[in-house]
Amino acid sequence: MVVRMDDAFLAVDWGTTNRRVYRIENGAVVRTERDERGVTAVTDFAGEAAAIRARFGDLPMLLAGMVGSNIGWRVAPYVPAPAGVSDLAATLLRIDDRTMIVPGVSTSTDVMRGEEVQLLGAVTAGLVPGDALLVQPGTHCKWAVMVEGRIADFTTAMTGELFALLRAHGLLAAQLHGEVTTSSAFLEGVVDGKRRDLAASLFGIRAAKMLGTRDDADAAAYASGLLIGSDVAARLAAAPDAPIFILSGPELGNLYTAAIAANGRSAALIDSHAAFVAGILAVGAAIA
Amino acid sequence: MVVRMDDAFLAVDWGTTNRRVYRIENGAVVRTERDERGVTAVTDFAGEAAAIRARFGDLPMLLAGMVGSNIGWRVAPYVPAPAGVSDLAATLLRIDDRTMIVPGVSTSTDVMRGEEVQLLGAVTAGLVPGDALLVQPGTHCKWAVMVEGRIADFTTAMTGELFALLRAHGLLAAQLHGEVTTSSAFLEGVVDGKRRDLAASLFGIRAAKMLGTRDDADAAAYASGLLIGSDVAARLAAAPDAPIFILSGPELGNLYTAAIAANGRSAALIDSHAAFVAGILAVGAAIA
Repeated sequence: MVVRMDDAFLAVDWGTTNRRVYRIENGAVVRTERDERGVTAVTDFAGEAAAIRARFGDLPMLLAGMVGSNIGWRVAPYVPAPAGVSDLAATLLRIDDRTMIVPGVSTSTDVMRGEEVQLLGAVTAGLVPGDALLVQPGTHCKWAVMVEGRIADFTTAMTGELFALLRAHGLLAAQLHGEVTTSSAFLEGVVDGKRRDLAASLFGIRAAKMLGTRDDADAAAYASGLLIGSDVAARLAAAPDAPIFILSGPELGNLYTAAIAANGRSAALIDSHAAFVAGILAVGAAIA
Repeated sequence: MVVRMDDAFLAVDWGTTNRRVYRIENGAVVRTERDERGVTAVTDFAGEAAAIRARFGDLPMLLAGMVGSNIGWRVAPYVPAPAGVSDLAATLLRIDDRTMIVPGVSTSTDVMRGEEVQLLGAVTAGLVPGDALLVQPGTHCKWAVMVEGRIADFTTAMTGELFALLRAHGLLAAQLHGEVTTSSAFLEGVVDGKRRDLAASLFGIRAAKMLGTRDDADAAAYASGLLIGSDVAARLAAAPDAPIFILSGPELGNLYTAAIAANGRSAALIDSHAAFVAGILAVGAAIA
């Protein structure tokens, strides 16, 4: 299958816990729905694909994300970085003639699956330049170095997962129920995060309680700043000149924007859904 | 009460989950028992103290550790660092004429409660010189800079707690059930830990599984090396010249010794029970 701009097709961004289906016609989204049928909620993938076609139209289908992992439908390969649109299109896993899974991307030390479509789509849609540092915040935050429009290198930090673990379990859990905004406590955490001494800085949250130097209402914002700040400081040091773009909704996007600004750089927020659509269109058009 | 070297008295190292009672006569331990009656297991502290006296002798009693915290018997103060034996002895919390709790020690950003007796005892017993970097590995690892025999500064890193959280919950939990020894995987973690980029290095454990570059049997040792290595690298950078001593049992002691050696320094293991006894004797003798 080759997806031409005037074709109709279905694109599915199929992650671990969520799924978003797009019906695309003439290069534009005509219908989209998000649900919680992520791969961990599904066992009969062929049946799910048939159900999607029954709802969205009996069309060719391009799937991306954890659907191509060992907990998904079938294991799609990883394309080694540097990887561009044509590399992904040349390495699709074909379930059948009109159902294909986009491969992930790997380096010698890291892997991604799903994020690559957004990253490359951001470039092909002209949302970001071909040479840039792109951030996808979340449970496992991806930082991709784009060079000449391809994914040249990337790093995943389990920043969001560490925050969730600390909030749910252990010594600090009882202190971390406050709101997280770009408050002064958040920015204080970002500054301490630059020291990149997480295990000690985190104990400082407990010590501040014992010493009465920080209200518990601010502890979660400080902890979030610390984790995001460590991540930002490490990544900016590795890409001192690249313009920075954040693919994210506004909530996490604002936190990363503030943390990047506190490190003397600026970053623009990009629409990650638009980037996904542009990316999956580009991959579809590049299929040989 | 003043504890002279020829007095008999009881010393209790009373932590969160464990407790160790010593009967000391003429400066030597004549009987000791460890149990799991830590402060979280106790509500009637006066009754517990009476029960200890019933078993070990109706003697004066010096208590140290979390028994003096807000989850203990009564809240003993923190003595600000730099703190020596005489500072602790001058700030005891007196429950009654012959029952006293040793205070904790604080800096502007950190607190300890219980560790101070070991640290000062290590010096007074001659186990370590008066100027040294002392490590007490564990759930919350303490690193104390001793200057002229006093606790000049210290840092707590929640290294052990982070390892326990990762082992019990989240993405990596299923991978982290292997044995932790000073293996090549542990030392590989120590080297990666020097980058002090924990959230990214931890995700690398997942990536290594997906890429088939590390056996899961080695993942726990690598993760332990990463956490201990980050901690060691941060702390050694702050104390480039001090001789290093580890107050610990052999298991954690060997891991820290190996991590310190991988950072080009050497460290000697010290008997932490002997240090506690020397410390509590010194505090007792210094009571005015």
